[in-house]
Amino acid sequence: MILARTVNEVKAQVREWKSQGLSVGLVPTMGYLHEGHQSLIKRAVAENDRVVVSVFVNPIQFAPNEDLETYPRDLEADCALCESTGAAMVFHPEPEEMYGDDFTTFVDMTGVTKELCGKSRPTHFRGVCTVVNKLFNIAMPDRAYFGQKDAQQLAVIRRMVRNLNMNLEVVGCPIIRESDGLAKSSRNTYLSPEERKAALVLSKAIFMGERMIKDGEHDGEKVLSAMRELIESEPLARIDYVEMVKWDSIEIHHKVDGPVLVAIAVYIGKTRLIDNFIAE
Amino acid sequence: MILARTVNEVKAQVREWKSQGLSVGLVPTMGYLHEGHQSLIKRAVAENDRVVVSVFVNPIQFAPNEDLETYPRDLEADCALCESTGAAMVFHPEPEEMYGDDFTTFVDMTGVTKELCGKSRPTHFRGVCTVVNKLFNIAMPDRAYFGQKDAQQLAVIRRMVRNLNMNLEVVGCPIIRESDGLAKSSRNTYLSPEERKAALVLSKAIFMGERMIKDGEHDGEKVLSAMRELIESEPLARIDYVEMVKWDSIEIHHKVDGPVLVAIAVYIGKTRLIDNFIAE
Repeated sequence: MILARTVNEVKAQVREWKSQGLSVGLVPTMGYLHEGHQSLIKRAVAENDRVVVSVFVNPIQFAPNEDLETYPRDLEADCALCESTGAAMVFHPEPEEMYGDDFTTFVDMTGVTKELCGKSRPTHFRGVCTVVNKLFNIAMPDRAYFGQKDAQQLAVIRRMVRNLNMNLEVVGCPIIRESDGLAKSSRNTYLSPEERKAALVLSKAIFMGERMIKDGEHDGEKVLSAMRELIESEPLARIDYVEMVKWDSIEIHHKVDGPVLVAIAVYIGKTRLIDNFIAE
Repeated sequence: MILARTVNEVKAQVREWKSQGLSVGLVPTMGYLHEGHQSLIKRAVAENDRVVVSVFVNPIQFAPNEDLETYPRDLEADCALCESTGAAMVFHPEPEEMYGDDFTTFVDMTGVTKELCGKSRPTHFRGVCTVVNKLFNIAMPDRAYFGQKDAQQLAVIRRMVRNLNMNLEVVGCPIIRESDGLAKSSRNTYLSPEERKAALVLSKAIFMGERMIKDGEHDGEKVLSAMRELIESEPLARIDYVEMVKWDSIEIHHKVDGPVLVAIAVYIGKTRLIDNFIAE
């Protein structure tokens, strides 16, 4: 497996693969890979001849008060996981390689980024769109893989690719959970043992909301109220949002009469966790 | 020559050319083609196996008070010029084809777009970057050709391609002038005979400024003052800006101690015209 640190290395290698008629899959990540990421890499390996995994903690998607500095990193473990899962290349650039001193171009979006995480983190999706746009131009993939855990991100990236006529397919993959239900996240590592237990309230609320809708509840307000009540019963939890939106335009919509995304963001202590489900 | 009206037609044809190992040049235009555009097409034809000319009056680069509705159009003449100059395809989409009803993604830039036309037309370069980004993804060119007449636009597009790691070369081409000096522009068609004469003040100011610097004047203020004075001597002329900036960061810089762009925008009656020169 190749460990590339520069844009030019990746471009040269991908051009060589393409000239051999090989298809390329890209899995963009911020590293500290867990089984959620691994499921994306597995799928990419199954569907493409060569797979590039980018490992880059993207500074411009963090606000100044957020956890850029403390975000967990372990390149060695990440490379081992990528190699054993069948990736052909890990791309791990320094921030300067991605954002040289003349960097002033941004990709941004209105509408889809207004609610949910876009509301709590107003510059977040500008950073996400910009880095993902760059990664698509660098790795020139036929397909790129994103987890549904960041459902709004998935909707945003799909919209960007469609709106800018980019030449690849965006593949969304299901949420991977710990055995007790907690959605896998690199940020779970921030949790103390007590917080780890409290964090279960997210998946419990998700499963309950999903169950209510499956059992015929079409009133979004009722579903959201029940979920909020459950989360508020946990003393260590503080709600950022519990919301129902149209999938995939991400407009507030409190009625289950078409595909909806029910998404939550909850602080457990200082750690902000997200979870969601899509109901058709 | 092919006249394509949809994104998919262009992509399919370009993919076929690429699969045959043919290189592709793109000349993005707003149509009403003149010899300035033709010089770009000629150069593209000389340097690429196949040339695509896009003819699209891009609504999102016009502000509400600008000349979107009256911008001159003549597709038939444009196609004749493209065909006779050796283009392989004209891409002429409707605005709905470029900006479907879910369009919410924009490419924008800070810094380089702050001065000159970016100051007078604050949403202009967002529209330019977005449409050019789309056109690059649609036509997947090896090279794209832009006139130096829109020097700031050329700097902006080069920056976008570099910042977003796009996979093409941006080629800048010299300004083409009428025999009396006026820079060729589709907007010259707006001028009455009297205004057409008055418009000569732009190129006269440009030539004078260029001469002063060639003769050793390094003081930007003196060059700009002399140019302003000349333009103000023409009663039909109203200055939007007469400015000297670093080439190609487009920062205000009134000293000729490296490459500078001297750029002017002047209203002749209601018509806004631009001209410039680069001094090394």
